[in-house]
Amino acid sequence: MIFGLMHFTDQELIDLVPKRDLRAVARLITLSENRAARARTIQSKLFKNTGRAHLIGVTGAPGAGKSTLVDQLALAWRKAGKQVAILAVDPTSPFSGGAILGDRIRMVKTAEDSAVFIRSMATRGALGGLSHAVSDAVRILDAAGFDIILIETVGVGQAEVDIVKTADTCVVVLVPGMGDSVQSIKAGILEIADLFVINKSDREGADLLHRDLTILLSLTELPPEAWKPQIARTIATTGAGVEAIIRGADDHRVWLQSTPMGRTKKIGLVKDGLIKLASDLTLERLLTGREAELAALAEQCADRTLDPYTAVEKLLLRG
Amino acid sequence: MIFGLMHFTDQELIDLVPKRDLRAVARLITLSENRAARARTIQSKLFKNTGRAHLIGVTGAPGAGKSTLVDQLALAWRKAGKQVAILAVDPTSPFSGGAILGDRIRMVKTAEDSAVFIRSMATRGALGGLSHAVSDAVRILDAAGFDIILIETVGVGQAEVDIVKTADTCVVVLVPGMGDSVQSIKAGILEIADLFVINKSDREGADLLHRDLTILLSLTELPPEAWKPQIARTIATTGAGVEAIIRGADDHRVWLQSTPMGRTKKIGLVKDGLIKLASDLTLERLLTGREAELAALAEQCADRTLDPYTAVEKLLLRG
Repeated sequence: MIFGLMHFTDQELIDLVPKRDLRAVARLITLSENRAARARTIQSKLFKNTGRAHLIGVTGAPGAGKSTLVDQLALAWRKAGKQVAILAVDPTSPFSGGAILGDRIRMVKTAEDSAVFIRSMATRGALGGLSHAVSDAVRILDAAGFDIILIETVGVGQAEVDIVKTADTCVVVLVPGMGDSVQSIKAGILEIADLFVINKSDREGADLLHRDLTILLSLTELPPEAWKPQIARTIATTGAGVEAIIRGADDHRVWLQSTPMGRTKKIGLVKDGLIKLASDLTLERLLTGREAELAALAEQCADRTLDPYTAVEKLLLRG
Repeated sequence: MIFGLMHFTDQELIDLVPKRDLRAVARLITLSENRAARARTIQSKLFKNTGRAHLIGVTGAPGAGKSTLVDQLALAWRKAGKQVAILAVDPTSPFSGGAILGDRIRMVKTAEDSAVFIRSMATRGALGGLSHAVSDAVRILDAAGFDIILIETVGVGQAEVDIVKTADTCVVVLVPGMGDSVQSIKAGILEIADLFVINKSDREGADLLHRDLTILLSLTELPPEAWKPQIARTIATTGAGVEAIIRGADDHRVWLQSTPMGRTKKIGLVKDGLIKLASDLTLERLLTGREAELAALAEQCADRTLDPYTAVEKLLLRG
């Protein structure tokens, strides 16, 4: 079944999304992806319905088993009676079509459990388009009453880290033997983790990775009231260890909601989101309908008859 | 010797940078990193001196041997009588201090060849700070008459890809046996490559990687006048194969300068740079001195008494 093709009026969307009408939810996400002006009006109206979902970002190197793990987490939360949505973030690439298609097929399989709403989101358009679209989708799913929203990224690029970072709880999936040691883990990934998952933990090297991670975490000085990242060991293909992630995510949410440091972190996330949104909107307004002007300025800069700072001042002045 | 601490007047910088006075160059880069207002004025004045350098971006997975390769390239270009500068882009991270320090030590070694100017640049501040600082540094080095500017990134995150993408010629370094196959190469990396380098090409799997890459490239439909990405095989530790990269980079530059498609690509790069700069400047102007206001809006959004779109409109209205 392909959602998102039906027509709905604004009022219908405002009424149906909070009732978790999946066609309305899918339609509104599509409208927001296409940056339809009406999507914003509707979302402002729905905002009062948001703030209840627990947003969980899952990232890690390709091949770490993120997709399988996310499926298992979704199923475990479903069994616990939660409404679950998955956003699978695919940075599109002319070279990675196969992998992404394979991923979608996997997704469709999980979708047989009708209560798990799954949406793939791909990079589209220019600046900040993806993170913008993901934030919007999260707000829509939150308004629709999903208790758990899992954001899964295909890769571990900066754009994906930036997206996962906006989640309440960040899960970083590692596997034994994928690099020489924890040191090879991409900078920027470790700092965002609230929970580490050592997946494929029946593999050789799991103990070593666990020990290295523990040492690494012990080296970070944290104030006593700070959240201490947890380490869980799983075998995603069998579901072993998944309940430890769920417990850890619950603990982390309690920390966010009930401690001053948690609240500060939450407000910081919101602030980053506002800055991002302000930047996207400003740029959109600045550049809409001025493609020719921009191209002319770029040509002058390329020919060295104009310097970039002066060119940008010209853009901003008339903006 | 630590550059960048001396005082220079604006006029001294405007006079000395085009004479390749390294203390003046280092000082101006520092001013621009610190976003000093005078840096912009000086850079506007120096812009007429730019446009001659060949800007070469080098990226690839950690452990691929990028640093060694960049050193070899720098030495080879030096031997050919070129003035060479290296910008080493380090995304800082509390966990990666060791690796970065190690990298700086390596850099200092190459620096014994006094004609290779080396500058490490780290992420600082918030949005777009790094790519902004790198573009500025490139323009300054260009104005200083460096023929070759090598931009080397430590990792392969999206931010780094975005930086390398701004170069005239993009070199992507791969090594045999780092993943299961070419398919595991991060999406977004392959598309930006003008030259592929298979480093450590004496290792098992080099032929296989070469073959896979060739097939992958043959699958991409390109118009006849388009640049066809080249593949070079190197052993960076001995310098073997480095001359093929230099020939490839030269060929690519000729293509950029002498074909309509090359010119279109170059203008596109400039345009992307202008958009980035416009976005950074706008945001800077919008948010400067409004930290308290932003924090208050974020708090209201976190408490769900205000929706993000309305919050951002408030910011933009008073901006």
